[in-house]
Amino acid sequence: MIIILDAEASDAQIEAVQSKLSSMGMETHISKGIQRTVIGAIGDERKLDKEALEVLPMVDQVIRVMKPYKIVARESHHADTVIDISGVPLGGNQVQVIGGPCSVETQEQMDHSAADVAAAGCRLMRGGAFKPRTSPYSFQGVGVKGLEMFRQAANRHNLPIVTELMDVRMLDTFLEHKVDVIQIGTRNMQNFDLLKEVGRQCQTPVILKRGMSATISEWLMSAEYIAAGGNHNIIFCERGVRSFETAYRNMLDVTAIAMLKKETHLPVIVDPSHAGGKAWMVPALARSALAAGADGLLIESHPRPAEAWCDADQALSAEQLKGLMDELRGIARVLGRDL
Amino acid sequence: MIIILDAEASDAQIEAVQSKLSSMGMETHISKGIQRTVIGAIGDERKLDKEALEVLPMVDQVIRVMKPYKIVARESHHADTVIDISGVPLGGNQVQVIGGPCSVETQEQMDHSAADVAAAGCRLMRGGAFKPRTSPYSFQGVGVKGLEMFRQAANRHNLPIVTELMDVRMLDTFLEHKVDVIQIGTRNMQNFDLLKEVGRQCQTPVILKRGMSATISEWLMSAEYIAAGGNHNIIFCERGVRSFETAYRNMLDVTAIAMLKKETHLPVIVDPSHAGGKAWMVPALARSALAAGADGLLIESHPRPAEAWCDADQALSAEQLKGLMDELRGIARVLGRDL
Amino acid sequence: MIIILDAEASDAQIEAVQSKLSSMGMETHISKGIQRTVIGAIGDERKLDKEALEVLPMVDQVIRVMKPYKIVARESHHADTVIDISGVPLGGNQVQVIGGPCSVETQEQMDHSAADVAAAGCRLMRGGAFKPRTSPYSFQGVGVKGLEMFRQAANRHNLPIVTELMDVRMLDTFLEHKVDVIQIGTRNMQNFDLLKEVGRQCQTPVILKRGMSATISEWLMSAEYIAAGGNHNIIFCERGVRSFETAYRNMLDVTAIAMLKKETHLPVIVDPSHAGGKAWMVPALARSALAAGADGLLIESHPRPAEAWCDADQALSAEQLKGLMDELRGIARVLGRDL
Amino acid sequence: MIIILDAEASDAQIEAVQSKLSSMGMETHISKGIQRTVIGAIGDERKLDKEALEVLPMVDQVIRVMKPYKIVARESHHADTVIDISGVPLGGNQVQVIGGPCSVETQEQMDHSAADVAAAGCRLMRGGAFKPRTSPYSFQGVGVKGLEMFRQAANRHNLPIVTELMDVRMLDTFLEHKVDVIQIGTRNMQNFDLLKEVGRQCQTPVILKRGMSATISEWLMSAEYIAAGGNHNIIFCERGVRSFETAYRNMLDVTAIAMLKKETHLPVIVDPSHAGGKAWMVPALARSALAAGADGLLIESHPRPAEAWCDADQALSAEQLKGLMDELRGIARVLGRDL
Repeated sequence: MIIILDAEASDAQIEAVQSKLSSMGMETHISKGIQRTVIGAIGDERKLDKEALEVLPMVDQVIRVMKPYKIVARESHHADTVIDISGVPLGGNQVQVIGGPCSVETQEQMDHSAADVAAAGCRLMRGGAFKPRTSPYSFQGVGVKGLEMFRQAANRHNLPIVTELMDVRMLDTFLEHKVDVIQIGTRNMQNFDLLKEVGRQCQTPVILKRGMSATISEWLMSAEYIAAGGNHNIIFCERGVRSFETAYRNMLDVTAIAMLKKETHLPVIVDPSHAGGKAWMVPALARSALAAGADGLLIESHPRPAEAWCDADQALSAEQLKGLMDELRGIARVLGRDL
Repeated sequence: MIIILDAEASDAQIEAVQSKLSSMGMETHISKGIQRTVIGAIGDERKLDKEALEVLPMVDQVIRVMKPYKIVARESHHADTVIDISGVPLGGNQVQVIGGPCSVETQEQMDHSAADVAAAGCRLMRGGAFKPRTSPYSFQGVGVKGLEMFRQAANRHNLPIVTELMDVRMLDTFLEHKVDVIQIGTRNMQNFDLLKEVGRQCQTPVILKRGMSATISEWLMSAEYIAAGGNHNIIFCERGVRSFETAYRNMLDVTAIAMLKKETHLPVIVDPSHAGGKAWMVPALARSALAAGADGLLIESHPRPAEAWCDADQALSAEQLKGLMDELRGIARVLGRDL
Repeated sequence: MIIILDAEASDAQIEAVQSKLSSMGMETHISKGIQRTVIGAIGDERKLDKEALEVLPMVDQVIRVMKPYKIVARESHHADTVIDISGVPLGGNQVQVIGGPCSVETQEQMDHSAADVAAAGCRLMRGGAFKPRTSPYSFQGVGVKGLEMFRQAANRHNLPIVTELMDVRMLDTFLEHKVDVIQIGTRNMQNFDLLKEVGRQCQTPVILKRGMSATISEWLMSAEYIAAGGNHNIIFCERGVRSFETAYRNMLDVTAIAMLKKETHLPVIVDPSHAGGKAWMVPALARSALAAGADGLLIESHPRPAEAWCDADQALSAEQLKGLMDELRGIARVLGRDL
Repeated sequence: MIIILDAEASDAQIEAVQSKLSSMGMETHISKGIQRTVIGAIGDERKLDKEALEVLPMVDQVIRVMKPYKIVARESHHADTVIDISGVPLGGNQVQVIGGPCSVETQEQMDHSAADVAAAGCRLMRGGAFKPRTSPYSFQGVGVKGLEMFRQAANRHNLPIVTELMDVRMLDTFLEHKVDVIQIGTRNMQNFDLLKEVGRQCQTPVILKRGMSATISEWLMSAEYIAAGGNHNIIFCERGVRSFETAYRNMLDVTAIAMLKKETHLPVIVDPSHAGGKAWMVPALARSALAAGADGLLIESHPRPAEAWCDADQALSAEQLKGLMDELRGIARVLGRDL
């Protein structure tokens, strides 16, 4: 940790900072310049609060030198981690596409969806039984019976299932239904009690979506919450962030993909459907994400998009999904990857 | 609802949109221009999904005419709502300042804090027993025993207590401890299950903080979740939003205060401490919020700020709090309000 | 244009709006609902100020139905426009990569750069003689003599040159030096006098970079300024926008590429070097932009990146540029394009 | 300057960084930790490019210790600067309100406006002869003859005039018309050639508006461009920044007021009219800005707001302006200031 003090700091004030640092178990080194005094502090700064130092008189800036995250950091584990999702690997050379509808509606719709997803060549399936909706008056998902419909439809095609957990009280039910991947949605990225339970109570792989305007560092720290509980099977999912632009829903942050691949050993996937919010944009965004280095994609598809119960305007038809898979395969090959 | 179709929409495509609207229970009127066709749809649009219309061929834009929120809207209740917090009114002519520490630490610290808060003239007290922290390695709050310490310290000065609920499983405990105001934090503004329970299970006043980058409309919709469950005792709390600026922590959005006072009949308070993130900024931001029309303020204070267990650099000392109260009283008087 | 009035609007107030619209040359149609009255107005709304209507009593919202831009809109010209840059086509099936240093430094550096750029297979070259720098104390570019060095180095390899114009008083000098493409930088996207002159005084192709936080609509309107003057040779360049993220310099907005390709017939290129701000990110961002549909790329390269006089950390070496070109060629092929 | 190197940096790599720093005229000190090596560099870092260091192998972070601005910094001039605007002081204890229309329209409108502004108690007047408009098809201002109308109207009431300069070629005309304050608009905050000329060619006070999404540091640097040319009569004007919120036009950043008052000795004013974009919000925002510490306000007023040629929906009527002045006077008094 580096502490920068104002030029006018007195010797007593400088000593006060040093003694605070010592009480925190840090060793200190001082360099005095004409304009500023700089204190370098060595020790495990992860447990320190910057604020406790910033409050001291004449302290201008406190700068962390170490990353605040540990288990998820590439510094602590150089090789890429491959996560085993009920037999399907995610994070290695093979790119995975997770297809399926926004929400579980009926058994017939799920059966149809599963067949389409498998036919397109996807090896995992998505679908929401519980839906986080901005309005309390919108459709909130079919609930637990949706998990059953999903399970049944997916099993026929050997597709591991990905579904969103919103309420910590539902975790047991998810585990009973042997959900293969628990998705933590954007709005729950900093629902710390939910993260803790998912970390403590299971080894089920978790897709952790980025918060609406979460920094990459906050996102890594949320993953660290899960990892600290014991579950290291974490997959990051970029889904666009909030911006000033109103021409589309979210701004897909492809730079975050490159940055995450550098900072963490864990897999990174992208949800181009929620990012753009329109089906016509999905192919361009999906290709773009893959080319930027994503390890997988989460793509909404529906047997009859116009009749979907939610987000109707962003789902691909079976045919569109298939066409996109072909394009993606071509790009994967250029990058030396399989799909 | 207004649906704008492309100039090239055929008669059949226009009819398809009309028939979809009819099936949703809406009446339609058409105006055909040279460049666009416009369909006006009349009926209760709150239950409609825009997306189901946007997906139809040749539909360019779908525009809501009605507000998506209802119970919390000023349209449905013209007069300002005054909320009774265990005898202290919030939302009327009298401005309320809620003082106290970021987190409950010890009985001694809470006793000291409560005395300071009361002495400064505040009529409500804040303090967190459960803390949402970005890092799993930071202090997470003292937990349930913190509620007890808080209760005991506050009772001596007749101060109703405000404290944050993060985990839905803790709601019963909060109700048993007769928490006077439940605070829903920034990171939980769209934790819909938490909102639903707080709405359904109690009539305890709720302070609903704005999400890190929530739009005013989303924030009102989150309040609508609580209200729809039956609890109408909701207080909005602006606490700064995320921006590109790095010179301070959050950007305090004073325009939101004016906008909310127009859109809702419910009280609006402001947290200048979390907005700026530095104690030296708090007086300027507190005055600014009050002058913009806030009904109350949530201000961090601590007997010994430099020793606070969290956010040490943003708490005011007892003396600073008292000085600020005097300034605020002057501004309240100019605005024709009491404090 | 659609005008939405409050439910409580009186007949006289509704008539006032209609008469204002008539005086603006618009025809009106009214639909009265229980909650709102909606007026549809037909005519050329491009010349109308929304504000003049929004100020009228009881007007809730004024919504444009037509796009505010015209010459640059795809609505007015369906086919993709191919711009001829001194013999090199931009905007058609062939993807163009524009390589070269951030700034012109010396004749030797430019000769070396030009040779590297040509050897890598790029058909256009970039380099700044005038540099927009945040600090007045930073290197401001070598000025007019830089244009000469650039011209001389590029001519040897038949590379048309791209260089930034910051000061309207320099336009004649640019035209005398036969600059092949005039670049308008981020900070000048809404320097309207500069746009007008570039539109009125020449037919030289213009690369119009997106403003730091410009919406796509504002960007299209800035292009319309140039086009309205008579110069239709406009190329959009996405270069990342300002965001809350601090882990990298700008957020590359790939969704904007897809959106622009839909809204305008003009070519769209991307500058991955300024977006990420670090050389190691450039390949991922360049691939990503191309996969999203970009017609070209603007990539910084330097014979000795570590010694560059500005933005040293974002330039590729000759070797890196060559390697990237190979990857890009593979992706172009998957998309059915040449490079 | 502080340079943080990766733990894996070799001795040769550390020496390379040191020798680069020496060649830049900096003295260095090294601290080696287990996780990182930190180099402190002492000397005048204002002229250094961070990028030239960031590009070196194993360099993780380069952190400036000194502020990049100098003349405008409070560090270099502790007392508040009072600027003399043709006899009216700005920046001291007295708060100044600058009233007047968005744009100059007719002599009659300006005469009327000037009378209203003076009657309300304002001591300075605003009005635009040249208007920066997003669309080339919108009213662009009446031009030079507007300066004459403005001059004539204002002189009758002894009001110094404030008007926007967009085109560097117009500076001489502004000086001939003895414009009392030159306004540099939002879109030109980083039009560096314009800033340089305004700094070099005159001592006329300059109102420098904040760019749409400029950081406070960039804004200070733009002022430094003017100051470096020799003109130190600079007034900062906060006018709201771009954000994700769509309920109003710009987000007024009151925290920036407090921050600027700390960082610079120059006066800071606020434009609440452009921030909110609606007349009904102006009083709340004006009060809020004053309470946050602004030295002045720039408020749009018009004899007949509904007929204004631009921004009709944000101008106050004469009566509203007068009412607001009374409220502001009350707040100023609480803060110990005059108005």
